[in-house]
Amino acid sequence: MDESDATPTVGERACFEAGVKFGTLYHQFAGTPVSPDNARSLERAIEESIENQPHCVGVTVDILEDRLDAAIDHGYTELTGEFMEVEIVVDYEGTEVVTSMAMEDGYPLMRVEEVRRGGD
Amino acid sequence: MDESDATPTVGERACFEAGVKFGTLYHQFAGTPVSPDNARSLERAIEESIENQPHCVGVTVDILEDRLDAAIDHGYTELTGEFMEVEIVVDYEGTEVVTSMAMEDGYPLMRVEEVRRGGD
Amino acid sequence: MDESDATPTVGERACFEAGVKFGTLYHQFAGTPVSPDNARSLERAIEESIENQPHCVGVTVDILEDRLDAAIDHGYTELTGEFMEVEIVVDYEGTEVVTSMAMEDGYPLMRVEEVRRGGD
Amino acid sequence: MDESDATPTVGERACFEAGVKFGTLYHQFAGTPVSPDNARSLERAIEESIENQPHCVGVTVDILEDRLDAAIDHGYTELTGEFMEVEIVVDYEGTEVVTSMAMEDGYPLMRVEEVRRGGD
Repeated sequence: MDESDATPTVGERACFEAGVKFGTLYHQFAGTPVSPDNARSLERAIEESIENQPHCVGVTVDILEDRLDAAIDHGYTELTGEFMEVEIVVDYEGTEVVTSMAMEDGYPLMRVEEVRRGGD
Repeated sequence: MDESDATPTVGERACFEAGVKFGTLYHQFAGTPVSPDNARSLERAIEESIENQPHCVGVTVDILEDRLDAAIDHGYTELTGEFMEVEIVVDYEGTEVVTSMAMEDGYPLMRVEEVRRGGD
Repeated sequence: MDESDATPTVGERACFEAGVKFGTLYHQFAGTPVSPDNARSLERAIEESIENQPHCVGVTVDILEDRLDAAIDHGYTELTGEFMEVEIVVDYEGTEVVTSMAMEDGYPLMRVEEVRRGGD
Repeated sequence: MDESDATPTVGERACFEAGVKFGTLYHQFAGTPVSPDNARSLERAIEESIENQPHCVGVTVDILEDRLDAAIDHGYTELTGEFMEVEIVVDYEGTEVVTSMAMEDGYPLMRVEEVRRGGD
């Protein structure tokens, strides 16, 4: 690969698409009132709404009830990264990108796990 | 009632609480990717999340699939007031407030329908 | 006032409008990346955006830099109620409602302070 | 580059980071009440809030007043992609990614413009 070529590769475009989905998911739903009572319906709604976006193959959201229980004083709290783990898979022109979010060092870290490159 | 008394009544506090729920519902979820495929799970998640809030008795969200169908060109659109009708009922110290949102003159109008005053 | 009359009063409608503004403000901007570097521009943008809404006379947002400083580990945090104090004034058909939000018992409490009723 | 290697490259991680910023920007601020009166303060607040995020070198937001004027019937509207053009530059481990959003075919298209690869 010529390092002077600034044209994005398919893998780079695929990772950009995955990043857009993560930013969307987090900032659309952060702040939503959440308790153990509505965790299941919220997980499902987040997954299905993000799966509408282009190139999105699958979204898995796990709202962590033990952390919710520990944080709730007044019946509910607001959804933030500390209360959920997420995996998003994107397929862009045959390249599949697996990305995830989980807490690391007190911060909800979003990362690219794998780039399964299309075989041409 | 003495018009010079600036202390809010129970009915006024109840209506303030109902207004907070409406602003929350609208601005938490406006912008969510939505299509007929995820309309049901999104309705349910909106209802259950807002019902967490204090004094909230019930929330009914109806995402209007015919308007979604008419608006969608690229597989999905973003949720706005034009695609949903909402009713929220709040009970504050025995006074029940019924509020609604529907399109009126091209604008999603939120209004107080009824204030069922507690009988003391 | 006949307690059996469920028609909302002007004061009740005014308080509903004020509540809508508060829910809007909180859930539109909760989650925004914030640090002392952008606190001023964010305060201004929140105030001016909510002042667009009908019947809104004035909005004052104070992002609390000492609480930001205490909370920030990684350069910034996400805006929540614990980092701001807000006052919103609404005028609806000559009745002015003063509302506020501040932390109380670990929770961002929104309340109606005064209802200055129109004089007829 | 071995196509069977699923480890993300620096360029791919850089593009993921840029995508996260775009999704954040769009879904944090979509729905904000906007008119020509608050367009300037909102542009500034969006830019400065996103610039807090890791690896973000610069953000430029241009809210398009002519499109606002054409869309506004009731004094203001809600911010969506049709009313703004955005450029975000990310630097991740020496690789600089330039990304943009503008309307294309009725849809706010986010894209990677350039990946300026670090020279080693």
